[in-house]
Formats: sequence, C-alpha cells, structure tokens
Amino acid sequence: MAAPSRLLIRGGRVVNDDCSRVADVLVEDGVVRALGRDLLSPGDAPAGLRVLDAGGKLVLPGGIDTHTHMQFPFMGSRSVDDFHQGTKAALAGGTTMIIDFAIPQKGGSLIEAFETWRSWADPKVCCDYSLHVAVTWWSDQVKEEMKVLARDKGVNSFKMFMAYKDLYMVRDTELYAAFSQCKEIGAIAQVHAENGDLIAEGAKKMLALGITGPEGHELCRPEAVEAEATLRAITIAGAVNCPLYIVHVMSKSAARVIADARRHGKVVYGEPIAAGLGTDGTHYWNKEWHHAAHHVMGPPLRPDPSTPDFLMNLLANDDLTTTGTDHCTFNTCQKALGKDDFTKIPNGVNGVEDRMSVIWEKGVHSGKMDENRFVAVTSTNAAKIFNLYPRKGRIAVGSDADIVIWDPKATSSGV
Amino acid sequence: MAAPSRLLIRGGRVVNDDCSRVADVLVEDGVVRALGRDLLSPGDAPAGLRVLDAGGKLVLPGGIDTHTHMQFPFMGSRSVDDFHQGTKAALAGGTTMIIDFAIPQKGGSLIEAFETWRSWADPKVCCDYSLHVAVTWWSDQVKEEMKVLARDKGVNSFKMFMAYKDLYMVRDTELYAAFSQCKEIGAIAQVHAENGDLIAEGAKKMLALGITGPEGHELCRPEAVEAEATLRAITIAGAVNCPLYIVHVMSKSAARVIADARRHGKVVYGEPIAAGLGTDGTHYWNKEWHHAAHHVMGPPLRPDPSTPDFLMNLLANDDLTTTGTDHCTFNTCQKALGKDDFTKIPNGVNGVEDRMSVIWEKGVHSGKMDENRFVAVTSTNAAKIFNLYPRKGRIAVGSDADIVIWDPKATSSGV
Amino acid sequence: MAAPSRLLIRGGRVVNDDCSRVADVLVEDGVVRALGRDLLSPGDAPAGLRVLDAGGKLVLPGGIDTHTHMQFPFMGSRSVDDFHQGTKAALAGGTTMIIDFAIPQKGGSLIEAFETWRSWADPKVCCDYSLHVAVTWWSDQVKEEMKVLARDKGVNSFKMFMAYKDLYMVRDTELYAAFSQCKEIGAIAQVHAENGDLIAEGAKKMLALGITGPEGHELCRPEAVEAEATLRAITIAGAVNCPLYIVHVMSKSAARVIADARRHGKVVYGEPIAAGLGTDGTHYWNKEWHHAAHHVMGPPLRPDPSTPDFLMNLLANDDLTTTGTDHCTFNTCQKALGKDDFTKIPNGVNGVEDRMSVIWEKGVHSGKMDENRFVAVTSTNAAKIFNLYPRKGRIAVGSDADIVIWDPKATSSGV
Amino acid sequence: MAAPSRLLIRGGRVVNDDCSRVADVLVEDGVVRALGRDLLSPGDAPAGLRVLDAGGKLVLPGGIDTHTHMQFPFMGSRSVDDFHQGTKAALAGGTTMIIDFAIPQKGGSLIEAFETWRSWADPKVCCDYSLHVAVTWWSDQVKEEMKVLARDKGVNSFKMFMAYKDLYMVRDTELYAAFSQCKEIGAIAQVHAENGDLIAEGAKKMLALGITGPEGHELCRPEAVEAEATLRAITIAGAVNCPLYIVHVMSKSAARVIADARRHGKVVYGEPIAAGLGTDGTHYWNKEWHHAAHHVMGPPLRPDPSTPDFLMNLLANDDLTTTGTDHCTFNTCQKALGKDDFTKIPNGVNGVEDRMSVIWEKGVHSGKMDENRFVAVTSTNAAKIFNLYPRKGRIAVGSDADIVIWDPKATSSGV
Repeated sequence: MAAPSRLLIRGGRVVNDDCSRVADVLVEDGVVRALGRDLLSPGDAPAGLRVLDAGGKLVLPGGIDTHTHMQFPFMGSRSVDDFHQGTKAALAGGTTMIIDFAIPQKGGSLIEAFETWRSWADPKVCCDYSLHVAVTWWSDQVKEEMKVLARDKGVNSFKMFMAYKDLYMVRDTELYAAFSQCKEIGAIAQVHAENGDLIAEGAKKMLALGITGPEGHELCRPEAVEAEATLRAITIAGAVNCPLYIVHVMSKSAARVIADARRHGKVVYGEPIAAGLGTDGTHYWNKEWHHAAHHVMGPPLRPDPSTPDFLMNLLANDDLTTTGTDHCTFNTCQKALGKDDFTKIPNGVNGVEDRMSVIWEKGVHSGKMDENRFVAVTSTNAAKIFNLYPRKGRIAVGSDADIVIWDPKATSSGV
Repeated sequence: MAAPSRLLIRGGRVVNDDCSRVADVLVEDGVVRALGRDLLSPGDAPAGLRVLDAGGKLVLPGGIDTHTHMQFPFMGSRSVDDFHQGTKAALAGGTTMIIDFAIPQKGGSLIEAFETWRSWADPKVCCDYSLHVAVTWWSDQVKEEMKVLARDKGVNSFKMFMAYKDLYMVRDTELYAAFSQCKEIGAIAQVHAENGDLIAEGAKKMLALGITGPEGHELCRPEAVEAEATLRAITIAGAVNCPLYIVHVMSKSAARVIADARRHGKVVYGEPIAAGLGTDGTHYWNKEWHHAAHHVMGPPLRPDPSTPDFLMNLLANDDLTTTGTDHCTFNTCQKALGKDDFTKIPNGVNGVEDRMSVIWEKGVHSGKMDENRFVAVTSTNAAKIFNLYPRKGRIAVGSDADIVIWDPKATSSGV
Repeated sequence: MAAPSRLLIRGGRVVNDDCSRVADVLVEDGVVRALGRDLLSPGDAPAGLRVLDAGGKLVLPGGIDTHTHMQFPFMGSRSVDDFHQGTKAALAGGTTMIIDFAIPQKGGSLIEAFETWRSWADPKVCCDYSLHVAVTWWSDQVKEEMKVLARDKGVNSFKMFMAYKDLYMVRDTELYAAFSQCKEIGAIAQVHAENGDLIAEGAKKMLALGITGPEGHELCRPEAVEAEATLRAITIAGAVNCPLYIVHVMSKSAARVIADARRHGKVVYGEPIAAGLGTDGTHYWNKEWHHAAHHVMGPPLRPDPSTPDFLMNLLANDDLTTTGTDHCTFNTCQKALGKDDFTKIPNGVNGVEDRMSVIWEKGVHSGKMDENRFVAVTSTNAAKIFNLYPRKGRIAVGSDADIVIWDPKATSSGV
Repeated sequence: MAAPSRLLIRGGRVVNDDCSRVADVLVEDGVVRALGRDLLSPGDAPAGLRVLDAGGKLVLPGGIDTHTHMQFPFMGSRSVDDFHQGTKAALAGGTTMIIDFAIPQKGGSLIEAFETWRSWADPKVCCDYSLHVAVTWWSDQVKEEMKVLARDKGVNSFKMFMAYKDLYMVRDTELYAAFSQCKEIGAIAQVHAENGDLIAEGAKKMLALGITGPEGHELCRPEAVEAEATLRAITIAGAVNCPLYIVHVMSKSAARVIADARRHGKVVYGEPIAAGLGTDGTHYWNKEWHHAAHHVMGPPLRPDPSTPDFLMNLLANDDLTTTGTDHCTFNTCQKALGKDDFTKIPNGVNGVEDRMSVIWEKGVHSGKMDENRFVAVTSTNAAKIFNLYPRKGRIAVGSDADIVIWDPKATSSGV
C-alpha cells in the first residue's frame, strides 16, 4: 500500500481482537510508530504529516481474506478478476491482504506453480498477498518441494483437494503422506473437504435423471458428502498429529463435525466464507439460469435457510475461526459453458469486496459478536494461523500499517 | 434340531419381544402347534408326548447369533471351532441359529465360496445356520453372482470390508457399486467399518516404535478409525438409499455415529457383540501375553471402561439393534504366530456360547432392559432384518420350535 | 363399537407392528377369533356372518389417540367437540380408542374429577376410551387418591403440568412427590413440559411491547422454554427411577433432549402430535387473525419449518414413541376471547380425525417409515405403555376387534 | 505487591494470550513502563534499578483466581485460610489476584456484606483482590443495592445459588429478577448451578439408606443434578439476554450443556476449577474418612475418571473460559462436624496455590494447550470478563506489574 510517509489517524476507536480504546495512531513508512491519546498537541501541524480525523469511526486492523482465486485457470476458463481488479476490490471492502492459491497440475512442480502465481500477482497487486500451495499429487519430488517452499519461500500452508476427481483430488494415502510432511516441516494442512467419488457418482445420476440445471450441482453433492470428508480429513490429520484447516465450511453438518472435533481436543480450524455467511442455496432453484449459475461453487451453498445463522454462531463462539471468500468470479458467458450440464459450470463466487461488511451486518449488527470478535475473525485469527501476527492482524506499535477506518453506521473504506 | 416328535413345554412364561405370558407350548415336527393355558388337562398323559415342566422358567425364542466365523481360514491359520463344535457351543448357550460368512478371495467366485462354506457346514452343524456372503472385490461377475445368490440361494446380506487392506478391503467406489447392487436386488449391505489405510499406516508406525505386543493392535486402530469408516459407509449407503448394517460396533464413537444417523432418518443397524458388551480393551495391556492376545480382534475392544455400558444403553433404546459375537477362536499356538508382531496375531474372540448370558447379566440384571427387549436383541430383530421372521424370532403358532428354556436365576439351556 | 355379531374380513393385508401378511380375520362378539388364509371355503356363506372384502386393503389395529380433551372446561370456555362428536371424528379417521384427561382444580379431588369425566364420557362415546388423571396440586389426600385410582379404577397414568402457572402448574418438589408415588403404585408419570414461570414473564413482556396477537403466543414461550422443562422433568424422574412420558413434544430442542436421555439409558417416552407432525408455527404470523388463533396451543407449533420432518424422523427411529393430537377444539367465537390479548385465546387444536392420515402421508408416503412402524406409532406402542396390549394394539387371536380397513392409496375408514 | 520502585526483568520470554516474544520488561511504581529487546545496554547498572535475570524463563501476566472463599463463615465453621494465608498461598503459586465472594444472609443487606468482607480483607491481603457479591434473596432493596454496588463500588458480578436450599438458594422467579437487574446495570450474572430441591431429597434418601459417609455427598447430587440446573440457568438468562457465568463446572454433562449453548449463540462462560481439572471423585470412596472428606465440595468431583481430561479439552478450545479454585479450606476437625452425616461436612477444597501448576501440567505438558492459551485461561479471560483488562491479564506498556516468572521446567514463583 502506498501509504503517505507520515500519517496521523486521530481520535478514532482503535479496535483490536482483545479490546478497544480511543487513541491516535501514528504511521511512518508503513509501520505503526505510536499509539495513544493526543499524540499531537492541539494547534500542532508538523510539515509532512497527513492528519486523518477518525472521530466517531473505528480504526481496525486491515482484513485478511484467507481464500481467493484471482485469474485462476479453471474448468476451461479463467476467473475474470485478476490480481489487480481483485485486490482493488479487496481494498474497497476493507481487506488489506489476500491469500491466494498456487495450484499445480497433477505431475507438475509445486515450486514452478508457486513461481507462476507470483509472476501473475507481483506486477498487479494493490494490497499485500501471499500464497497457499496445493498438493494435487504425491511423489518424493512433491515431498521435497514442500520442504523447500516452507524453508525458502515462506509458504506455511498446503492445500489438498478431496474432490475434483481426476483433476486435483488426492486419495487418503496421499492425504496421509501430505499431512505427515506438513507436520514434519511445520506447515498447516488445508483441505477442500468433499467426497469426490460420491460427487462423480451423484453427478452421473443427476444427469441421467435429466437434471442438468444448477440445482443439480447441489443435489449431487449434499451436506453429507461434505461432512463425511470433513470427518475423514480430521481423522487422518489426527493420526499424524497435524493441525488442520478446513477451507470453505459450507454446511451445518460439516461445521458440527469440526466443532465436535475441537471439543475432543483436535487442533482443527474452520473457515466459512462470505457467501455462506450471507446467503443460502435456495438460489440454485432460481428461475433465472444465470442467477442460479452465479451461485455455483464447491461445496455448494446449502438449501437449509438456517445455515448462515448457524455458521455465524459458530464463528462467534470460536468453533469456526477465520473467514475467506473463495473469490473466483466468472462472467455469465463463462458460466454458460455449463448451460446444458451443470458439471461444466465454472465453480466460483465473488465476495472479496463484501466479506467484511457481510460479517459486520450479519454478525455484529445482529448481536452475535462484538467489534473485537469481528476483528478476530476477519483479520487477527488468520494472521495468527498463517504466521503473520502481530505484524498483521493487530494495531500496535511495530505492526504494519494495514489499517481500515470503519464507519460502524455506514460503509467501509480501506486506507 | 432333532426335537422329539411331540413336546409340551408346560407352565413357563413365554417371552416374545412384545409381551410375556404364562402359557403351555405344544411342539410337533419342529413347529409350534399350539400356545395357551392348560393345553393338557390334569391327569392326561398321551402316548408319544414328551412333557417338559417349565414352571418358574422363561420360554424364549432361540437366540440368533448374527456373526460367527467357524473353521475360518484366516491369517495363515484356521479358527479352531468348526461348525460342529461351534454350533454345539451355541446351543449350550441358548442360541439356536448362527449366521456365518462365506468369504471369497479377491478375484474368486462368490457362488463358489458360498458352496464351499455350505460343504463345510452342512455335514456338521447342530443348529440352524445361514450365510452372509462377502464382496471382497468388484467386477461384472461379482455383480451378477450377487443377483444369483439372492434369487436362487436365499442369500440376503452381503458384507464388505473397509479394512484388511490388500486382503479383503474394497475402495469407496467399490462400496458404492456393491451398495447399489444390494439396493437393486433387495439385499441388505453389511460393512466391517474401519479405515484400512489408517490401520496399515498405524501398524507400521507402532512397529517402528518398537511396540510389537497386543497393545499395539489397539493403538494402531483407535476409535476414530472405526467412527470415520462408519460415517463414510453410512454416507455412501445414503447416496444410493441402501439399508446398511454395521457389524461389530466396538466403540462409543462409532455407536454415536450410528445413533446420530438414525436420528436423521437413515436406515442403519448396529450390531454390538458379546465381547464388546461384556468387557473392554484394558486386556491388551495385561501382562500375560496370551491373555492379551486372546482378546485381539478387529475392530479392537476399547480401553475406555465405560464402553460396554454405553453400548448396552444403546442396545436397550434401539439405537443398536442386534447382537452377534464374531466368534472366531484361535488357540494360543495359533495366536503365537504374532508373538513378535501384533499384526500377525490371528484376529478373533469367542462368545457364541456366552452371548445370551452376557446380555442377560449386563443388560437385564442391570435394569437396562426387560425380558422382552432381551428377546428382541438376541433373536427377534435379527430374524426380522435377515428375513426369517416370524418363522424364527418369535414363539407363535406356526413358528419354528427354536425354543430356549431360560432360568432367570441361573444358567440357560437350549432345547 | 357396535360390531356385527360375526364378521369376516377377507383377503386383506393384516399389518401388525412386527410384520404383515395376507389373511382373513374372523371376528365374533367384538373379539378376533381366527386369523389365517381362506378361513371361509369358496362358495360358503354361513347365515349370520357378514363378509367384508378387504382385498388390496390394509387391515390395521385401530388407532389409539393418546391425548384428547373433549368437552374440556378450559380458559373460560369449553372445547366444542364433546365425547360424542369427538369420538365420531376419531372413528372416521381410523382411531378406535382415545385417552382423555380428567383434570381436577387445585385443591380438588382426583377421584371426583375422574368420576365427573366418566359421567361426561360414558353416555356419549362412540369408541373405546380411557382417562389419564392430572395431579394439579399435592397433599396426602392426592397421594392416597392416586393409589386408589390405580388400584380400583384402572388408571395407570398421571399427568403433571409444569406450565399454566397458578392454574395447573406444580413445582419441582411436587413433581418429585408425584413421580415418587407413580413409581410406588406402578403408574407412568406424564408431564406437560414447559417452564411456566418463564412463560408468565414472557407473556408480560410481549404485552408490554404491544404484541397482543397470536404470534406473541409463540414468542413468549420459545423452544428453549420447552426443552428446559423437558430436561428438568427427566432429571427429576431419573432421581426416583420413574418412567416418564412427555406429552405433546413440539420442538426439535425438546425432542433432542428426549433422544439424548434415551441414549443414556433413561426410560422416557415422547409423544408428538398430529398438528406438530403435519405443520409448523409460521401460521402464527398469518394475516388472518382467526387462522393464526386456531393454531394456538401450548406448547406452540414452532416457526422452524424443519420441525415436522425432524419429529417424524425421530418417530420413525423410536426416539419418539406414540402419537396423540391434543384435540381440544374451540370455535372462532371462543378463540376471540383473546382478540386483544393472546394469553386469553383458549389453547387447543384439532386432529383426532386426521392423525392417522397425517402420519400415513408424512411418515409412510415420504418413505420415513414402513406400514409396520406406522401401526407401532399410531396404536401398538400406546397399547403397550398404557397397559392395553395385546388386547389392543394388535390383530391377533383373542384381541379386541378394533380393526381399521385402510386403503393405502386413498382415505381411511374405521370399522 | 511490594514491588521495588524500579525493576528490570531481563531476557525472559514474555507470554501474553496472543503471542510470545523474548523481551525485557521495565517496571516502575507497579506499572510496566517499557517492553522490548535490550532495554539496558550491556554494562549499564543504574542506581535504584533492580535487575532480575529471566533467561530461559517465561514472564507471564499474574494469575487471576476467579473463585475463592477466604475466612468464609459457612456450615457452622469458618474456612481456615484467612485473607492473609490465602493470598500468600496464591502468590506462591503465581496468582496475583483473587476474586472472593461477599455473601449476605437471606434478608441481609448486600452492601453491608460487601463492607464486611472488605473489612476482613483489606488489612490482610498480600495480593490484589476484588469481590463478587451474592444475591441470596430478592426484594426491591436487593435490586437497589445491586445498582449501588455496580455504580459506586466497582462490583460487576453477582452470584446466585441454585443449591443450598433454605440457606442461599433462590427460586427461578428470583433468578429471573436478578438476571434482569444484572442486564439492566451492566453486570454479569453468576450461578452455582445445582438443583437444590433434588439435592435435599437425595440427601434424605441416602441417609435413610444408611449412607452417611462422604460417598453419599456425590450420590445425592449426581451429574444430572448439575446439568439440569445449568440448562435452566442458561434458559432463564437467555430469556432476558443477560450474559451468564457458571461457576465451578464439575461434570462432563454440565460442560456439554454450556458448550452446546455457546454453539447456539448464547453468551455463557464456564469456569472449571483446579480440583476438577486435576483429579476426580473416586476419592469419595477412599477408605480414609478424612481423605474423602477433604474432597467434599459442591458440586462434587465426579467419579467418571475421564472428567478432568474432558474439561481440559473444553478449556483448551474455549468452550470453557476461565479457571478458579473454590478455595475454601477446612481442617480435619472442622470436616469432622460431618463424621456421622455427610450433609454436615463443611464443603470446600483447597487449590489457590496449585491452580496454575495443575493447569500447566495437565493442560500444557499434556499438549492440550500452548503457553498462550495457558495465559488466557489463568489470567487474561478473567481480566476481560470482570472488566480488569488490559490493566490486568496482559503484560504491556501501561499494565499493572502483576508479573510471574515461570520456569517451564520446574515450579513457579510469583514476583
């Protein structure tokens, strides 16, 4: 972020995940230098100091979106928001860092994928970013590259797909191996938790029944398919004592599996996403095909209308921990690849701009969480898990100046 | 059973699963002909009628042991109780029917396995028996043979192993196919629910740690490994609407998964076994190797000492449904195959003689269930599920004379 | 029932709770005399024998509605269906026995209440009936009268109200005493489980907020109020080892409490009712006041639209056991007593005629239960719990001829 | 604490609830003035600065024991540790603040009780302290005094007893009133959650059975009695939207009720205590009467040996939040008041000195939580809930110098 060389944010309510207080924040060279009441005496106006009045506003650590796919080549298409558009949208919504995914093809090099994604992102990003790296196959080379990425490239999270059969999906023995290596190198394992075999069978069955529209997308991969894979991943991770992070928790069933596991002492984190917290899967039955298709993502939004509230409750009480978006947008032309066959609709929804305001409205306005928990789930917890804390995720002396001025009564704007 | 041509069981308390009443039972040619008070006038003594006084005793439908492995060639050995010894023991304990398993090798014919097992059993059995047939691999031939067995041979239950990797274990896609075929032909699917991949990895890890004794058997396949596979099987069965029967439910976790699934409307039955209802897995830490080894079975007994009580509660309230034994005995010499490596200890415990009395003592004496529920879980429910009811599982006019005179204060004896 | 002296029901499918078979049923003097194939030779037509062709139909044990309030003086009114109208409706829907409630005022005699209700019912009933008796206060007299009713009058169930503060509600210590006496005399305890104190406070709050319409009825006594009282009753009953029967289970929360208690070995039965299985509480927000008011009952129907399905699942898997209706109808004029204050709307809904068909449609047609479970939950289980079995609740030689010919494809008709 | 005027704690690992870092801590006048690497240049040795080398040690926020009863007049006795002995023990164990309870008799003034306790504590305490105030009866005066205490005396937590019938116990309507007032004045409500009626009945029953020893204490108030009251309190608090704090959570059942409530969005905190985290209720069956008697407290420790582990798991995952001790010690002579009748044994255990080390050993050493969560549950969370944060519960510039040097390999010592 091109912050001015010196900036004083004056009189706002500085909100961290543990407490809030009215204070001025002095920023120099992108770092918070001082924090306190009345850092500037009345009447003072030093040259080179930009002063921003935040009276009546909240001053928050910038949001961290833990899950995006900018300009992602996927399902015969490429997501339309590139790293420029996507990160601009992020900033507009109060998110100052995104974590995207470098995803090699089966047989491909993880390091090359990482470099490819960096080459896409570096010239374009408007905000901070980092990359999770996907493990889509297994071999000694993959094992070695994981170590190199962790040691030399700062990668500390690897994602495995239990769905997308034949494309990205790995088998249980490969999960076991990948989790073991994560444990070994000190990284956190992530999974897309859906049973890919059942999805493949379910999709065949739906198409055979003549169900080709977006509703088939949900019908062929109901909640149970997500919950089953979630428990399986937790069980395998438990067998190797590897911390586990479940990306895009979309259903009450899967969330319950996570909450139960935590209750039994497992180290497992769940990430709901903006779309799942903000709306539900009844859209798949919308009469407008394009409306329905724009909600197609995997795992799908759930038809049970009590899902968003349920997920928000668990986010409030720490059974769920962080929030992402799975931002991966396709335009209607791209979605139309699946006009006659829902399995060909490119999967993905938007959300990187709206995440913070969705959680503010549905979480804080509704009374489910306070402003401090809001900061925890939009920023601090992600910073802790992905090893960025307290440089990010907190406004404190020495932290990065990833700061958002948030109008609790209106809309938000990144700084 | 070689019942006398005419038999009158007089004055007992006839206990079925729905109610009890004091009544005489008249048996002719192995079938119950009459049931009522004072079928024989005082003083009457017709020739050819054997009269048995059951005053003060319970008259029960003979027990059905849903799960035995007599003379089973397994793990480089063969279980010592053959169909003669095994069924004699069954009768001694009040069990008048066993259901054993015909288990083909991978690549082998199901029908041939069925015929092989019949050739072993037919000349030897002392009580009624039937056979479940295992599906240990998948092909069009297997699919066809399942149909033939169901149509022509009276087989209505097929069992799939999710454990015993490389030996009997099938993969999820094979489970899906087998469940689909069960649904198609009207059979019930059974699974041995443990995650075979995790067991294999766990065993390697234990041996690498130098843990070679029987305790390693439990440590490499803890509760979570059973619960995970149980949920997976239920999820796959749910995807094809196939009723499912989980054999040998050994842990609280797995039992909870079943109970939860039933609460959500799934048609799934759980079968605890005598050993699991009667004792726990602390035996694996017994200082006498042979004592510990004789408790080795898969899934293992669980170290949590509250397990038997928990399973009995669920058996009482119908979250669990039937009871078997997994009777598959090996002598100490056979067990000693695994003296230096627990993975080589032939898996199996006894129980066919003790099942009824274990449940009577731990279930009825303890106050958890009444005599009617006792009949349900030892006999009637099995008869219903495996399509034998009301010929078996009930004492009624027209039923088979599989009758047990049970002394509620002492031991039992088959008739 | 004025059954003809001799009746042959020919060729139907006789459905009991354990199995079904095609058979003729011969009835004499209101009792089943014979049951079997071809009881009457072709061409035979004995005088005095009425023959009823039931080919293609189901022949069921008559339904038992465990919960009605005919001509009940309540909330300043009296329910409009008297024992004549009410039992006529019952028969029309396939219910051949109702169990109503004799409810003394605080300080009143239980025996007198019992006799009063008998004097109302005896001259009017068209079907069998019996009476639960309510315990609305506590004293040595009450304790003694419970014993007399159980010993001399055949009463084996006593109901206590945890709601209707100042009117019928008893305190925990009174519950404890009543449960202890039930245990002592061998009766089953029943409770209306809602926290009456919280309802009273909630109602005051709603009225203070200006919420006077039927929606206030649900808002002042949400699910938690029912679930709390349910757990409390179970805990108190557990302390004295008294079997417990929860009338009108209306919410998922309360049903879960019951199912959990059963899982821990408690002897507790839950009774959902036709209204709760058939519809939900969104009616309270209906724009037509009278429509909303006609759904007012306590505990209320629940706004969560997944409630009926959830309750039906639990009824199918035996977490819930019997079904009643709480049939207690008031006409619109009577309901209008609460036009300006929902607390004055006489509580009660209909259902005695529709119960069987609601469960058939939502339970059997939907695939949640088979015809045998249908018989169990509409008839057999009630007969067992209230000590009427096997005279009622089963079609067998010697049973009462409470028989329903049920057209599985159309509507039902009592015989 | 009599801290030296200037103190430098050098080279330790400063552990807060969110992260840890190696830093020096400079304390002046009891307040942290600076925090950072190398605050003192090598060779520097300013006069008046005491330097403490903390290399290899942890530097923690002082522990806060949320639940003590020093010199408490109770059950015909007075707990032997007065505010001097008790707080000395606290400091010895790393606890720098205790929160005790001012408890008026029924009919007594809350303010007077508060002043009485202050008069006992002020001259004696060796560490910081504050007071919860109990509401043991209800009237307009009580309501008014709660407001005064909150407004003028800094009291922000009020405790109600659901047990100790006739002594301290309040009824549901009084709970409702007290919770409403807490909500109104911005205080947090606390409850001792056990069903006092059931305890009274249970105690009578045990004594009637001739069970007079300490085991009777647990037998008359089993887990269900605690879980029931816990759900009742949560339900009542939910009805008035009042945050709730459950003191001394002793059983798995009660803890599960709390965890479930949190999952449904309730604001409820659970406080396990050192004794319950460290040991179990099998002590009540110890052959030495005095050994058993010294474990008598209400609610009792639980016989289920898996309880401590379960509670620790929930403390680790934030289903439980803070930790106290219920430190209330009686010597053997005092305990002997109940030699022939367990109901007369003064209730109370020790723990104020051991709490931190018990949690360190059973929580951190066992791998259930890291050092940051340890700080959260022993200090930070209590500081937040009772409005002391960030002055207490955190080591930061401006915080109180309540600092503990903790040797992760050995024992602890307060500073």
